[in-house]
Amino acid sequence: MLNFNFQNPTKINFGEGQISVISKEIPLDARVLLVYGGGSIKGNGVYQQVIDALSEHTFFEFSGIEPNPTYDTLMKAQEIIKAENIDYLLAVGGGSVVDGAKFIAAAALYEGNSEGNDPWDILAKQQAVTKALPIGAVLTLPATGSESNGNSVVTRDGNKLPFSSPLVRPLFAVLDPTVTLSLSDRQISNGVVDAFIHTIEQYLTYSVNGKVQDRFSEGLLQTLIEEGPKALAPATKENLEVRANIMWSATMALNGLIGAGVPQDWSTHMIGHELTGAFGIDHARTLSIVLPAVMKVRKEQKREKLLQYATRVWQITEGDENTRIDQAIRLTEEFFETMQVPTRLSDVDLGSKDIDLLIERLAQHGMTTLGEHSDITLDISREILTQAL
Amino acid sequence: MLNFNFQNPTKINFGEGQISVISKEIPLDARVLLVYGGGSIKGNGVYQQVIDALSEHTFFEFSGIEPNPTYDTLMKAQEIIKAENIDYLLAVGGGSVVDGAKFIAAAALYEGNSEGNDPWDILAKQQAVTKALPIGAVLTLPATGSESNGNSVVTRDGNKLPFSSPLVRPLFAVLDPTVTLSLSDRQISNGVVDAFIHTIEQYLTYSVNGKVQDRFSEGLLQTLIEEGPKALAPATKENLEVRANIMWSATMALNGLIGAGVPQDWSTHMIGHELTGAFGIDHARTLSIVLPAVMKVRKEQKREKLLQYATRVWQITEGDENTRIDQAIRLTEEFFETMQVPTRLSDVDLGSKDIDLLIERLAQHGMTTLGEHSDITLDISREILTQAL
Repeated sequence: MLNFNFQNPTKINFGEGQISVISKEIPLDARVLLVYGGGSIKGNGVYQQVIDALSEHTFFEFSGIEPNPTYDTLMKAQEIIKAENIDYLLAVGGGSVVDGAKFIAAAALYEGNSEGNDPWDILAKQQAVTKALPIGAVLTLPATGSESNGNSVVTRDGNKLPFSSPLVRPLFAVLDPTVTLSLSDRQISNGVVDAFIHTIEQYLTYSVNGKVQDRFSEGLLQTLIEEGPKALAPATKENLEVRANIMWSATMALNGLIGAGVPQDWSTHMIGHELTGAFGIDHARTLSIVLPAVMKVRKEQKREKLLQYATRVWQITEGDENTRIDQAIRLTEEFFETMQVPTRLSDVDLGSKDIDLLIERLAQHGMTTLGEHSDITLDISREILTQAL
Repeated sequence: MLNFNFQNPTKINFGEGQISVISKEIPLDARVLLVYGGGSIKGNGVYQQVIDALSEHTFFEFSGIEPNPTYDTLMKAQEIIKAENIDYLLAVGGGSVVDGAKFIAAAALYEGNSEGNDPWDILAKQQAVTKALPIGAVLTLPATGSESNGNSVVTRDGNKLPFSSPLVRPLFAVLDPTVTLSLSDRQISNGVVDAFIHTIEQYLTYSVNGKVQDRFSEGLLQTLIEEGPKALAPATKENLEVRANIMWSATMALNGLIGAGVPQDWSTHMIGHELTGAFGIDHARTLSIVLPAVMKVRKEQKREKLLQYATRVWQITEGDENTRIDQAIRLTEEFFETMQVPTRLSDVDLGSKDIDLLIERLAQHGMTTLGEHSDITLDISREILTQAL
């Protein structure tokens, strides 16, 4: 096990009817900005529950945060924050809304340095966040884990730029699985696949004999493999236990715990980000295209963990090492297919002609040495994308 | 899954050399009371590392906290706290020292109510803790999980009395597995068994389809089964990876996570506490005596989970249900035997003549309806103790 520091103070309020707790979680004297997306929360009753819970609070609204939230949209929130002296953000939505709220919170109090105080520097120059408005989150789409971590990804001009700070980690999160019943199949499948690949990024590397971390990751992967398809199947999709297990898995997949003390990869994400940035493909769908190719191209570097993955997650015990690994990769692809996400660039109408642009973007964003060994060069990223054709 | 609220803000600093972080974790202007036990930390280098880390701090010492810390000992710390205006406690030791520090921290700022302000009421009358001194912990014995939870057990006149408050949860904990290399076999085995049974208390109940919680618990149990015996075997006992895996398992076993959203039992602990209180038997050794008997007597109520435990933790797939359950219980006992802890009252020279006193004590302490269904009456506790003869 590697040395680590781990702390996750986000208070989780999990279960049916928990949205009402926000009335107590947010101080009564706070001036709250309710931040949300395209308005789906008005159709599924979440908005009304939130408004009811805030009946004693002073609050304002900022809506229109899009999937892959853009810098330009998020900066528009600064006006109302200044005009109304907002001192608390309540994000109601999926990972994009929570990610967006994090940037809004950091930008609102950004002081900058001698070179200026443009909040854009938080993303472009990775300037440290030293203050941020407090954030609470009501999660409507289990996927990114953003509701209890300090990570955020913001898009500008087709470029996806991450930043991270413990100061933007939500103070509390409400996870009510009933809220997810109104999601589309596509949203559910994207969420399950996203959580699955978050787990894989922290697990499928090389062994440091972190037995607890490995088994926790394997437990999340198995849960998502079992429950994900049920959330799409007509007979079981309304089952609240299925939704609860998916929701809790997605939070645990990226709250810092399973990645503490073990190496991490994230090459699938970095390559995937360019697919979203350049071609607008849903985040999770870029990951399901890239991951199988990463597994194939990095088979030797990940051999030991691929074998463990084959045995423990897929119960593959027959055949020689290569056979077991190949079968595990094949079963991973089949799982993605069951979840109705693409596993090939051709599935989203991209071909070899598009790879140059993606490699160019990786170079532009400094993504020249990816993976747990920092040895996935641009040439190897090209090999991965070619494998994914 | 049941609704739940979960929050664990303790910052974990894990790994070799991490004791030095306390210099930064504790504010420089704090007046620190270093709290420890019988002085073993002076023999294994931990004391010196702590002193070195506190070289810029103002600190005082309070030692002599015993295993199963007593009220009388802990109340003695109040003098130095008042005399020196102590405003921060640093607990250096195992679960008893950390538990003790929690009571010291709560007693120091106890305000009481209209009926008085005797800190004894925190234990005797379960009076709520409304303030407490901040606590940091340097863990030397992985076992109780006290380093990152709000629980404490204090003994007075042979009675073990628990209290719990988020206000006494350590702000930070240092977990350096090298520190555990100086532990005796008995301390190691007690710690592994304690962590194992903490996990069982939150797992072996009835299913609420909490898939993440179940798999996390199973992962901890498997890790302890694999690593525990290695920490006793001459060829592997110095292996730091073994110690690290045990240490992290013990913390995760009782930091609130695996128990969130699932029913909990704790009957083994409640009955075990009386064995320690009445006969001075090590805490973990009371648990290893009581648990197999609980499994046998509560076989029907725990049937579904016992079958899952047999399959997933012990890989038992052959035989009918009763055979599989019996084998899982037998393997649990064998694991305890490998860990050199008793599994029978007769192993600690107790017999049927001693059961009356234990039942009397349970009655005295209000432990008349134990277990996840609150249906373990005193008669059933007697049956459990008789089964354990």
